[in-house]
Amino acid sequence: MRFPGLVDVHVHLRSPGGEHKENFRTGSAAALAGGFTTLLAMPNTQPPLATYKDWRIAQTRAQRESLCDVFLMAGASEEHIDELPVLAQNVPALKVYLNDTYGPLRVEGIEPLRQIFQNWISNKPIALHAEGESLAQAIAMSAIYNQNIHICHVARKAEIELIADAKARGLKVTCEVTPHHLFLTEADADRLGPLGDMRPRLGTQEDVEALWGHINTTIDCIASDHAPHTLEEKGLAGNLEAIPIEAPPGVPGLESTLPLLLTAASEGRLTYGRIQDLLYTNPRRIYALPEQPQTWVEVDEKSAYVFPDHPLYTKCGWSPFESRRMTGRITRVVFKGNTVYQDGKVLSV
Amino acid sequence: MRFPGLVDVHVHLRSPGGEHKENFRTGSAAALAGGFTTLLAMPNTQPPLATYKDWRIAQTRAQRESLCDVFLMAGASEEHIDELPVLAQNVPALKVYLNDTYGPLRVEGIEPLRQIFQNWISNKPIALHAEGESLAQAIAMSAIYNQNIHICHVARKAEIELIADAKARGLKVTCEVTPHHLFLTEADADRLGPLGDMRPRLGTQEDVEALWGHINTTIDCIASDHAPHTLEEKGLAGNLEAIPIEAPPGVPGLESTLPLLLTAASEGRLTYGRIQDLLYTNPRRIYALPEQPQTWVEVDEKSAYVFPDHPLYTKCGWSPFESRRMTGRITRVVFKGNTVYQDGKVLSV
Repeated sequence: MRFPGLVDVHVHLRSPGGEHKENFRTGSAAALAGGFTTLLAMPNTQPPLATYKDWRIAQTRAQRESLCDVFLMAGASEEHIDELPVLAQNVPALKVYLNDTYGPLRVEGIEPLRQIFQNWISNKPIALHAEGESLAQAIAMSAIYNQNIHICHVARKAEIELIADAKARGLKVTCEVTPHHLFLTEADADRLGPLGDMRPRLGTQEDVEALWGHINTTIDCIASDHAPHTLEEKGLAGNLEAIPIEAPPGVPGLESTLPLLLTAASEGRLTYGRIQDLLYTNPRRIYALPEQPQTWVEVDEKSAYVFPDHPLYTKCGWSPFESRRMTGRITRVVFKGNTVYQDGKVLSV
Repeated sequence: MRFPGLVDVHVHLRSPGGEHKENFRTGSAAALAGGFTTLLAMPNTQPPLATYKDWRIAQTRAQRESLCDVFLMAGASEEHIDELPVLAQNVPALKVYLNDTYGPLRVEGIEPLRQIFQNWISNKPIALHAEGESLAQAIAMSAIYNQNIHICHVARKAEIELIADAKARGLKVTCEVTPHHLFLTEADADRLGPLGDMRPRLGTQEDVEALWGHINTTIDCIASDHAPHTLEEKGLAGNLEAIPIEAPPGVPGLESTLPLLLTAASEGRLTYGRIQDLLYTNPRRIYALPEQPQTWVEVDEKSAYVFPDHPLYTKCGWSPFESRRMTGRITRVVFKGNTVYQDGKVLSV
């Protein structure tokens, strides 16, 4: 079975400033190993990508170092509202953080949010980390300023239902859900400890069922929210005496997303065609991403194995889905005419 | 000069349960002394008016005891979502509290708010106490569920500007501002102590100027948010040893609202016609209030005096505007053919 080169619209490649966790080369290698040939990477780096200069430097580096297409979002910051017009002309999208998570960007209060929406003169989406009441805030801004918004990593029943209602009203809202929120629950968080800790946190069984209930309708994209941290940072390797009180939230996902979805398809939980909608058609439409000629992903949808079927390429070297039985193996990835992944190996590294 | 019988869309008459602060008779007497012949009273009483039964009992009592027309809003409560359909058929509007204030009603989280909007099947407005980020939430719900909402006591620059933007987009939002937020600042809060403490708190000079900047456009109504508490409760009379740590927030306003606005009109800050829009035309339209035949208010717009020009009728017996120089005196109120206020006296008490 063949898919076009897939798109992950939400990854953290940790560069600049967090290259001990991941860099453009290791992150894009993990992408290829996971069937992704286009990535949208997040701006909560060090420095954060809140100015055109910082964004330009990072984007140039991403293009030079990455093994697939990587587009960096800019991050909204109250201190750099004046950068938004030039950013709007250059970046694929703007990311706004309305809730606490890992990294330096965070927008608080209606006035800065209003200024951001007023100064983002573009049809390009504003992507938001917006949980709970912040989700309602985001939808309000979309409605008031007639702005395309994309809600990242929706994880709760009430949230996906509110988004469904907003879409039914014709508001300009799209959304993504992560595999970990589709395939894990808070029970797994207990089992996994820091390796099952991310933002938004894992939900209840009821949340997971609600998300699956919207898989063919409200949910536009599946995105990994690939957020690597080292096992040392997670307090599970190295000098265990020096464990930080709070391990940083986030789990990697680039290499497990497609196997998980292929497995679900093999079980009849969604169709292979819907996987293509969620990982290719909708992401490309929402973010107006360029075509990639002679680019595709070959999978053996019947092949069963224990994940991972290859040494992980993400620099952090672990996955919350290790030891999981999968049905559906990525056998080959062709990127712009070149075979870049085959038989468990990224060939371009 | 003559106005039609005026409408105060936001008062707390404290009945049931708080009759030591105010009751329907004293509150409606204060209304007449202030030029108001129709009141919309709030449901954060004891018990709160969250069920049809409790609302019906209170409304019946209001009709029996009041000297003018008093309509009680119902209060939204997570525990009584099932009451909303019958309430929607009977009450003038639903009040939702999204921020902490005085009283027992409070709605938290998007799911109960969503249920409230979904179950309020009516063009009658949902009135909201919604400051800051809660304001954005309220607007989101209005946009998603295509529901008329009315934002109570807007007090901040960012808030009135966001509402202006929402109205410009055509969203179904109306709003009110209180006289204390138009005529006092946080400097007065320092001076007045507990007698200048209410929710929302008094704003900065910049907030006040922003509100005045929208007096002829964004602001639909002036409402007193008449919220009487006794001087004992405010810690300023009685057993001063027994002062509660936190005096309850709220100030009375029924008797000072029209004098303050007449004074502002005498200074050219708004027109007398605009006063009629804010206290009569818009309130009646927003809440679909009935006409009152042979009902009017006579004022001597040139008469100067020190407020109050009559012993206060509100049971709490004080005003944050005491000793203020006013220009514009209420000389007579006729309610349904009867003179009910003249020469500083409510005649129907």
